[in-house]
Amino acid sequence: MNGAESLLHTLVQSGVEVCFANPGTSEMQLVAAIGNSTDMRAILCLFEGVAAGAADGYGRMKGKPALTLLHLSSGFANSMANQHNAMRAHVPVVNMVGDHASYHLQYDSPLTADVAAHARLPSAWVRVAQSANDLALAGAQAVHAAMQGSGKIATFIAPANHAWDAASEAVPPLPRPAREQVSREIIDETLALLRNGKNTALFLGGHALGEESLLAAGRIAAACGVRLLCETFPARLQRGAGRVKVERVAYFSEQAVAQLQSVEQLILVGAKAPVAFFAYPGKPSWLAPDQCTIHTLADVDQDIGPALRALAQALGAAATPVLTAEAPATPAPSGALTPMAIGQSLRTLMPEQAIVSDEAVTCGMALFPLTENAPAHDWLTLTGGAIGQGLPLALGAAIACPQRKVIALQADGSALYTLQALWTMAREQADVTVVLLNNRSYAILNVELARVQVAPGVGVGAGPPNAKTLSMLSLSQPDINWVELSTGMGVAATRASSAEEFHEQFAAAMNSKGPRLIEAMVVQQMPG
Amino acid sequence: MNGAESLLHTLVQSGVEVCFANPGTSEMQLVAAIGNSTDMRAILCLFEGVAAGAADGYGRMKGKPALTLLHLSSGFANSMANQHNAMRAHVPVVNMVGDHASYHLQYDSPLTADVAAHARLPSAWVRVAQSANDLALAGAQAVHAAMQGSGKIATFIAPANHAWDAASEAVPPLPRPAREQVSREIIDETLALLRNGKNTALFLGGHALGEESLLAAGRIAAACGVRLLCETFPARLQRGAGRVKVERVAYFSEQAVAQLQSVEQLILVGAKAPVAFFAYPGKPSWLAPDQCTIHTLADVDQDIGPALRALAQALGAAATPVLTAEAPATPAPSGALTPMAIGQSLRTLMPEQAIVSDEAVTCGMALFPLTENAPAHDWLTLTGGAIGQGLPLALGAAIACPQRKVIALQADGSALYTLQALWTMAREQADVTVVLLNNRSYAILNVELARVQVAPGVGVGAGPPNAKTLSMLSLSQPDINWVELSTGMGVAATRASSAEEFHEQFAAAMNSKGPRLIEAMVVQQMPG
Repeated sequence: MNGAESLLHTLVQSGVEVCFANPGTSEMQLVAAIGNSTDMRAILCLFEGVAAGAADGYGRMKGKPALTLLHLSSGFANSMANQHNAMRAHVPVVNMVGDHASYHLQYDSPLTADVAAHARLPSAWVRVAQSANDLALAGAQAVHAAMQGSGKIATFIAPANHAWDAASEAVPPLPRPAREQVSREIIDETLALLRNGKNTALFLGGHALGEESLLAAGRIAAACGVRLLCETFPARLQRGAGRVKVERVAYFSEQAVAQLQSVEQLILVGAKAPVAFFAYPGKPSWLAPDQCTIHTLADVDQDIGPALRALAQALGAAATPVLTAEAPATPAPSGALTPMAIGQSLRTLMPEQAIVSDEAVTCGMALFPLTENAPAHDWLTLTGGAIGQGLPLALGAAIACPQRKVIALQADGSALYTLQALWTMAREQADVTVVLLNNRSYAILNVELARVQVAPGVGVGAGPPNAKTLSMLSLSQPDINWVELSTGMGVAATRASSAEEFHEQFAAAMNSKGPRLIEAMVVQQMPG
Repeated sequence: MNGAESLLHTLVQSGVEVCFANPGTSEMQLVAAIGNSTDMRAILCLFEGVAAGAADGYGRMKGKPALTLLHLSSGFANSMANQHNAMRAHVPVVNMVGDHASYHLQYDSPLTADVAAHARLPSAWVRVAQSANDLALAGAQAVHAAMQGSGKIATFIAPANHAWDAASEAVPPLPRPAREQVSREIIDETLALLRNGKNTALFLGGHALGEESLLAAGRIAAACGVRLLCETFPARLQRGAGRVKVERVAYFSEQAVAQLQSVEQLILVGAKAPVAFFAYPGKPSWLAPDQCTIHTLADVDQDIGPALRALAQALGAAATPVLTAEAPATPAPSGALTPMAIGQSLRTLMPEQAIVSDEAVTCGMALFPLTENAPAHDWLTLTGGAIGQGLPLALGAAIACPQRKVIALQADGSALYTLQALWTMAREQADVTVVLLNNRSYAILNVELARVQVAPGVGVGAGPPNAKTLSMLSLSQPDINWVELSTGMGVAATRASSAEEFHEQFAAAMNSKGPRLIEAMVVQQMPG
C-alpha cells in the first residue's frame, strides 16, 4: 500500500464519497488511488473553480464535505474565488492539494510556490503531510476540521513522494464534532428581549434558514409579532409553498436602510449584523438604525435549531404558524422576455423540491420574489460575491441530490468565469437546467456606475459615462452565443427570445432529465 | 480631479498605455477615469486570468508593463496562475487592484478578504494606497518597481474611497531603473573558464535569448567551442533563419540528464541551473552531472547583452557566427494530421517576424524542432507551468505588436482554463491564429502517469491504470467542439482533420488579418 492508497481508504472510511478533480503530474498517485477505489466517485472538472464551486454546492446540500483534488499552488489559486464563496457559506469542504515531492522543493522548479500560503487564505485549517504514513492522518483530520461548526474549509497538502512511498494501513475516522449548544442563559436573555415590547426582528442566516429552524422562527414570530429577516445572500434558504416566509434584506444599501429603519432591536441567529455589500460615497456601510441594539442568540457555528425551538416553546407558541400559500394558477406569460415573465414561468413550472442556484445578479432581484409561492424548494445564492459560482454550485447540488431538479439562474457575465462546468454537467448527466440570462452586459456594473455618479454632494463624482467607459461594462461587440458555447461543451441548448418560447422550453426541461441550457434573451429594466 | 483621475494621468505619464481590465463595483471610478483618458487603451477581459496572461504577453514583447485592473481579492486570485507564469518569465506587470473603501473593511462584508495577502504571493512589490493623494504616487512607484531588473510584478491596491475622493495633481514619473552591470571581475573569471579546455556550456535564459545577446553568445561559442543551451521554458526566444541556434534542455528529466551528461562546467547567463520540472520516483531533480561545476556570469536581472559582447570581444571572436539556415522548400504535407505535418506547415507558412505562443504541451515537443529553420520569429513558452497561459499570452503579444502575426499553438486541455481570451481577441480584432491541438485528453498526464508507473524498484508504483483512472485524464465523453466554442466567443473557426486541410486553412489564416481558430484534430504518438 502506498501513501495515496492509505489516504483514500481513510477518506472513504471518514464518509467522503465524491471527489471533484483537476489533477496534474504531482497527483498521479492520488488519481490512481481514486481510480482503484470503488467507493470514491471521481468527477473530472476542467477548471479548478468548477471543482471548488461544485464542492460548495455538494456541501450545502449534503451537510458533509466533498473532496477536491487540485494541482499545486496555481491549481489552488484557480479555485480560490469559489473557496471564498464556500468559506462565506460556512460549508464543509476538504481540499486535497498535491505538491512537489518534499525533497524537490529546494530546487525551485518553475511550478514551485508556497502551496500552504495559498491554502491559508480561504481555509480555516491547513496541514502539510509530513510523510507517507502521515498522509492518511492528515486526511482524517481534514474531514474532522471541515465538520467543525456549520462547516469549514480544510485543506491538506500531499507531497508527491508521500503519495508514492510505502505506507501503513488507513486511519480510522475521527469522531464527528458536535456543534456548540446555545446556553440556557442566552436563551433566557433572548426571551426577555422578545417580551420587552420593542420593534424586533430576528436576523437569520446559516442553518437558521433550514425548514425546521424556520418553522420554529415562524412560531416565535407568530407568538410575539417579531419580523423574520434573512441575510441578503443565504447559503441555502428553504422556501416556497408550505414553508415559513422570511424577508431578505435588500442588496442596495439605501433600500436595506429603509427596510430596517423601524427596527429597535435585532437578534442575530446564525448571521452577522447586516452591512452594505459595497461602500458608496455618502451612503452608510452599517445598515441597522444607529439606535438599534444588536443581540446574538447564536452564531453560525452553533446548534441553532434547538435554541429556536426552546424559545418557541417558552413563548407558548402555536405548533404551526402561517405558512406560504401555493401560487394561484396563472396563465402562461406572453410577449417580451422580461425577468417578470421568466419568474412567472419558474413559479408555475418548478417541480416540488427543486434546487435553485441563483447567480442571476440583476435579474435575480426580480426572480426571487416571483418564486415566493412556487412549490417548496431550496434557494442557494452567491454567498461571497466572487462571481463564477452559479454553474459549479448547480453541478455540485445535482451530484449531491440526483433525484431533485436543479435550476441554475445564471447571469451571462458571471457565467463566463466558470463555463467549463457545463462539460462536467454533460459528462455526469447532471439534472441541471441552466437558464442563461443573456443581457449582454455586466448589468450590475451599469447600475453601480450610476450609483457612483449620483453621489449627492459627497466625494468627486465620476461624471457622465462616455462610450469608452460603457464599453468596459458591455458584453457585446461581439455578442456571445451561449447556444454554441453550451453545445460546444456537450450540453444541449436552445434560445428563447419571447416569454412563450421560454415557457415552452423551460416546461420541456422540467419534464425531462439531464443537463440543458436555455439562453434567455432578456429584456431588462434596471433596478436600483 | 479625484484620486482615480490623478492616478490615471500619472500612469500615462509613466509610460503605461494599455489596461487589461476586469473591473467590479469597487473600481467604477477607475473605469470612468480610464474611459476619460485618451492615452490609456482599455481592453476588457472576461476573466482575470486572461488579463494577467495578456499583460505577460505584452510585457514580454514591449519590455514595459501593461496595467491590469482587477476586482478585490477574488479577482486577484483568479489572475494568480498567470501572475505566477509572468513572475517566472521575469516580465514587468503592474496590477491595479481595487478594494473596498478603507472605512468599509471593518464591516467584513461578504466580498472582503485580505487583498494585500493575495497580492504578495506572486508580486515582488505590493503597496496599499493610503489616501486619494497617495494613489498617484503608488501608481508611479508600481511602474518603477515593475521595471526593476528584467521585470517584476508590482501590485498596488486602490481602496474605492481613495479613487473617488478629491486629489491633487498627477505625480511625475520616476526614473527608469538601470539594470545592474556584470562586473569586470566576473567577466574575467568567465573568460578564464571559457579558456580552461573543459567541456563547457552556456546555459541561457531571460534576455540572453534576445537576438543581439544570442549573436554574442554564438560568437563566443564559435570562438571557443562551447555549447549553447537554453531553459526548457524560455519567456521569449528569438530564433529561426538568420539567427543563432540554441539547444533547449529537454522537459523529461531522463532526456535532460542524457543531454547534459558530458558537460563539465555550466555557465549560467540569465538562468538558474537546470532542474527537473517535477520529481519522479528514482529520477534526479538536479539535471547536471554531479561533477559539473556551475558558474554565474549574470543573473536574470542583470544587463546581459554587454557582458556577452565583452566576452566575445575578449575572445577575439568573429563578428558573425554560423546562423540558422532557411528551411529548404518542401512539398505541402499530406495524409494524417500529425504534429509532424503541422510542424511542416508552420515551417513553410509562418511569416517573417511571427510571434508564437507555445502552450502546445505534448505536441509542442514536436513543433519546436520542426520550426527551427522557419523565418525569424519569437517563441514564447509557458514559463511557470500554470496552464491556461497560451491564449491570453497570444492576445497580449498581438496588442503589443499589431504589425506582427501571432500564432497560438494551443493544447485543448490547457485552452479550457482561459478560453475567454477568444472573446477579447474578437473584440480587439487581434491578429492571432489559434492552432487548437485537439487530442481530446490531458495527453501530458497520460505520459506522466506512465512515467510514475514504471519507476524501477523505487517507491510503490501506481499499478496499471484502470478505466476509471484513465477517464480522469480524458477530455472526451463528451467530446469538446472547439469550432462551436470559438464561434460562440466571436472568433471564426474551422476544423482540420487531415494534413491537407490544415495546410490550406493555416495558409489562409497567414494571408489574412484578424483572429481565427483552426481546430486541428491531431493524431498523436506519445513522447516520453
